[in-house]
Amino acid sequence: MSSQSEQHDVAVVGGGVIGLAVAWRAAQRGLRTLVLDAGEDGAWRYAAGMLAPVTELEFGERELLGLGLRALDGFPGFCAELGVELHLNGTLVVARDRDEAEELEQLLEYRRKLGLAVERLRPSQARRAEPALAPTVRLALDVPGDGAVDPRKLVAALSDAVEAAGGAIRRERIDDLGTLRARQVVVAAGAWSGRLGSLPVRPVKGQIMRLRDPQGQDLVTRTIRTREGYLVPRGEGRYVLGATVEERGWDTAPTAGATHELIRDLAEVVPGVLELEIEELGAGLRPGTPDNLPIIGEHGGVVWATGHFRNGILLADVTAQAVAELLSGNPLPEWAAACDPARFAEVAA
Amino acid sequence: MSSQSEQHDVAVVGGGVIGLAVAWRAAQRGLRTLVLDAGEDGAWRYAAGMLAPVTELEFGERELLGLGLRALDGFPGFCAELGVELHLNGTLVVARDRDEAEELEQLLEYRRKLGLAVERLRPSQARRAEPALAPTVRLALDVPGDGAVDPRKLVAALSDAVEAAGGAIRRERIDDLGTLRARQVVVAAGAWSGRLGSLPVRPVKGQIMRLRDPQGQDLVTRTIRTREGYLVPRGEGRYVLGATVEERGWDTAPTAGATHELIRDLAEVVPGVLELEIEELGAGLRPGTPDNLPIIGEHGGVVWATGHFRNGILLADVTAQAVAELLSGNPLPEWAAACDPARFAEVAA
Repeated sequence: MSSQSEQHDVAVVGGGVIGLAVAWRAAQRGLRTLVLDAGEDGAWRYAAGMLAPVTELEFGERELLGLGLRALDGFPGFCAELGVELHLNGTLVVARDRDEAEELEQLLEYRRKLGLAVERLRPSQARRAEPALAPTVRLALDVPGDGAVDPRKLVAALSDAVEAAGGAIRRERIDDLGTLRARQVVVAAGAWSGRLGSLPVRPVKGQIMRLRDPQGQDLVTRTIRTREGYLVPRGEGRYVLGATVEERGWDTAPTAGATHELIRDLAEVVPGVLELEIEELGAGLRPGTPDNLPIIGEHGGVVWATGHFRNGILLADVTAQAVAELLSGNPLPEWAAACDPARFAEVAA
Repeated sequence: MSSQSEQHDVAVVGGGVIGLAVAWRAAQRGLRTLVLDAGEDGAWRYAAGMLAPVTELEFGERELLGLGLRALDGFPGFCAELGVELHLNGTLVVARDRDEAEELEQLLEYRRKLGLAVERLRPSQARRAEPALAPTVRLALDVPGDGAVDPRKLVAALSDAVEAAGGAIRRERIDDLGTLRARQVVVAAGAWSGRLGSLPVRPVKGQIMRLRDPQGQDLVTRTIRTREGYLVPRGEGRYVLGATVEERGWDTAPTAGATHELIRDLAEVVPGVLELEIEELGAGLRPGTPDNLPIIGEHGGVVWATGHFRNGILLADVTAQAVAELLSGNPLPEWAAACDPARFAEVAA
């Protein structure tokens, strides 16, 4: 193997958004860095690229919120450095009936208590903001701070940036970390990370579709979220509509049922979705962990940067910067304590 | 152009199912035959391949019924000669509510009057025949004589057969019939035929999807039809689900709305459809005519074999055999009178 005949400071297993960001930040610090990518379709390829820690906040996931807000704060700088376009158009979370409206009021309340910037919009206000919304929308939650980025463009830019910083990227599948000759090894192999060690990372299937308006007109400017799905505008009439959350092992096939439900769900709140063309159906494998928090830190002689579940795009750079600190001989930042692989020590033992 | 430097007895413009069948039957008679194909996706590529003249019979389309029954009668021989598998599993037309049940009773009555073999199945009988049917099915019409064939396999076999019979096939786009040097020219260019002369052939978009069960198990054995759609089993867990009938010019993009509605419609009667994987979304352009009958015969110094709308697979060989008679200097069979291009003479003038 070519990777074994050379000496690198850092070998990163996995060339997805996390692996490339880690390699880039490491190479920027002068570490001789090699990325080994097996060529699998990483979760990033089917990710919507939402940067929405406030919208995605679930009850009890305060750790993830803090991490997400920190990441969102740094995202404009990250994108600027890479020359990647960042959309900061916000999100509208919509309720279609009384039950959903009550649920939305609770979400609003919880966010207000945490001091987050959200606004309650009556139907007429919501439709003034997004005229494509259906008249049946009963209530909306406006989250102006949310953003979105195109993960395919981000990964392409990161790939270039790694090489520009002196790092190398090779197409090579690693099945045994013991074969790597680098001084330090980082595992950033997404859903496949569980195969390279004893940490509990599992694939969680997410089906999405890419849609477009052939005239290039924008139906909505904000990301629109329902209880089950989202429609993320990419500009120029392009959208990502997603996503399922399925425990189906390594299966990535699009199914009739999910396709049907995703379209039905979004078309109820944005009927114009029905007129859009389907450019692509696809499914990614998110790297899930038992507590939905990523795994960042040293464990068993290897540095782990994985398990980012639905937050890999948002958390890529905060993860990369933390791991680069560690690779340079410094401690991890304080926030990373919650992501310590040691919390799974019993499972892993 | 290579086609102009040689002398052929017959040049067939269009290498879809009609053009290839015509070329094959002509070459079998010793005519030096050349097929010129522009490389467009012909309607056959997205056709379900149903051989269902009794099911598809519409009020007032007696001519088409006669032609379809004649074609179905000859289909086993056609497939045997080509070595293509023919499925003769029949069709169940199902009604989901009282309105559809009443409509189905009328369809049954009309077919019985015409002496066609159809049977009325109560819900329990229908579900005994096809256990995957939903309990909500109120009535079914059993059409045992219907068949189906895989159009992609049929076209591949025809392509081989043309060459085996001494014919030639070239990838070449013809925009002006006057440039062809052959003694006789046949236009079998499907939806594109209207561009090569003054006959009223127009593209009619049909969206379909190809589905599969990853375990290869068959959900249904018969073709299942609703008022809006159909599910055609291909065996080994594969299906074609279709189809829209849209006047959208040359547009062939799959849309979110049609995909959603096709799945919803069939899943109401066969819920297991929701579990199937989507292998492909696609759309074909059927060659439509003002009276839904094909155009077969000489007009303006050229032989036309086009305008087969939704019946191109079923009618391929009867069309080909009739046209081969004409190319050999014999009159067209009597049935072809209804397909005479002259009926559009006023339009064409």
